[in-house]
Amino acid sequence: MIQADQRTSFRAALVEAGHLVPTGVRGVFGRGARFEAVRLGLDALITRTAADERAEVLHFPPVIPRHLLESSEYLHSFPHLAGTVFGFEGSELEAAEQYATASRHDDWSRFQTMSDLVLTPASCYPVYAAIGARPPLCPGGVTIDPGAAYVFRREPSDDPARLQMFHMRELVRIAEPVTALAWRDAWVERGLALLRSLGLDATPDVAADPFFGRAGRMLAASQREQQLKVELLVPIAGPEPTAVASFNYHQGYFAGLNGIQFEGGADVHTACLGFGHERIVLALLLAHGLDSDRWPVAVRDQLGLDG
Amino acid sequence: MIQADQRTSFRAALVEAGHLVPTGVRGVFGRGARFEAVRLGLDALITRTAADERAEVLHFPPVIPRHLLESSEYLHSFPHLAGTVFGFEGSELEAAEQYATASRHDDWSRFQTMSDLVLTPASCYPVYAAIGARPPLCPGGVTIDPGAAYVFRREPSDDPARLQMFHMRELVRIAEPVTALAWRDAWVERGLALLRSLGLDATPDVAADPFFGRAGRMLAASQREQQLKVELLVPIAGPEPTAVASFNYHQGYFAGLNGIQFEGGADVHTACLGFGHERIVLALLLAHGLDSDRWPVAVRDQLGLDG
Repeated sequence: MIQADQRTSFRAALVEAGHLVPTGVRGVFGRGARFEAVRLGLDALITRTAADERAEVLHFPPVIPRHLLESSEYLHSFPHLAGTVFGFEGSELEAAEQYATASRHDDWSRFQTMSDLVLTPASCYPVYAAIGARPPLCPGGVTIDPGAAYVFRREPSDDPARLQMFHMRELVRIAEPVTALAWRDAWVERGLALLRSLGLDATPDVAADPFFGRAGRMLAASQREQQLKVELLVPIAGPEPTAVASFNYHQGYFAGLNGIQFEGGADVHTACLGFGHERIVLALLLAHGLDSDRWPVAVRDQLGLDG
Repeated sequence: MIQADQRTSFRAALVEAGHLVPTGVRGVFGRGARFEAVRLGLDALITRTAADERAEVLHFPPVIPRHLLESSEYLHSFPHLAGTVFGFEGSELEAAEQYATASRHDDWSRFQTMSDLVLTPASCYPVYAAIGARPPLCPGGVTIDPGAAYVFRREPSDDPARLQMFHMRELVRIAEPVTALAWRDAWVERGLALLRSLGLDATPDVAADPFFGRAGRMLAASQREQQLKVELLVPIAGPEPTAVASFNYHQGYFAGLNGIQFEGGADVHTACLGFGHERIVLALLLAHGLDSDRWPVAVRDQLGLDG
């Protein structure tokens, strides 16, 4: 109950300050000017930090082919988080019925049919497919920057740190196994330094994804045991710190799924990292106060807020 | 047929040059580094051009409450373009069935139920709702900058200028009727100057939305007659020029729908403008060549490509 109260009062303060604008749906907010200035400053800071990667920029919209989701394990691991896109393909008469039904806020789902698109669950998904469609990789592999893409997670919540659609700034490394793992591990340290340079009390932790159902507990245990996922945790609201960045080693899973190969046939492994923009901004607002004009000069400098 | 051929060859050249990356779904592409550099330079140019507006930044994710769409005329006018978000709310057993069905690429739509979210059809929709939730406006009203938001239109096409999800850079004016209309008209001229400064052969035209069905023809005729929509057209592919920006006067429609009021009760009208990022980048690639390094210096300067 304490936790719920803290979250409710923090959310109310964020709305009052104009940082978040309610839409009427839980976990879906507009964002005000100062929130966005901090968020874009953060994105630029991540870009500067990653400059030595010389990553290839490759941006995708927040929808991916349904086929890609079907071919992955996503619906096995996270059926509760996926969002699918439906549309109308009926006649003029059906369109009129649909409109009349929807106007009454009655159930008009029967007029909608499943399209060939789903909402992007993680911004690296389309990257693996695109690299798999290229000729085999040269030694050393590639590093891809999908930018700060919107991703969707169907988990309506009153926690302002748990949004249904948010910006995940990823980097993706596709390389030899040792290289991919070393890159992941190095970025845990770089991410930690980045967050601490913003005055955030960040700590790393071996973690697991929120796998669905009873079988999910075994998947989570296995993921932890193999240390495939490391998160950086920061206090936001509630007694437990919140994950604001994750660093993932997928071994050969995504390479195999998408047919990514090296010239000559050596093993390809992948790793990715993701910074959750909105969560980091919330952590900054909690750590330094709701008025970003009064944040420590060093933090404002890092975020380019005086530029 | 000439038109289809032109579009196909232009698209192939864009893919070959790495500007667009196919995903396997028509109208959904990844975008390469140089495409994105031009697109972001364009966005910055629009921001500079609009600086004197002192618009309030208010950014929303690319989903809006389903209720908002239901209350509007969108499903009457454009049922074929709307995208709705569905999700899974079943048991573990149903999740296993859904996964097995999806893995075979069979129809798993029966496991999905309609959520309370739809894809954003235009980035001004959530703006009107947010302003309607505020206290009544002071004289002069407000100007809102929703940024370059992703919007969804369900119109799969082989035309690279007809994407299912693209960036619409909007500005929204909510004001007295005369003020809103004058703002719209002034921005037609400003938009024209902006596009011409980039070396684009832009021309204005009174236009109509792609209303659905037979009744839609009347709506379109009425919209044209009242000159509610002006578009800027630029050659992209095919014999007809393509609309790359639109300037819309809604009279009292959105204000009434969302309960936007002036202190004292004077009439509130709204207008909005939208620049289609991807279409303008495509027009630039067609006008100046696929290698943006070799574009005219004046154009590169405007887009900050040498910064």
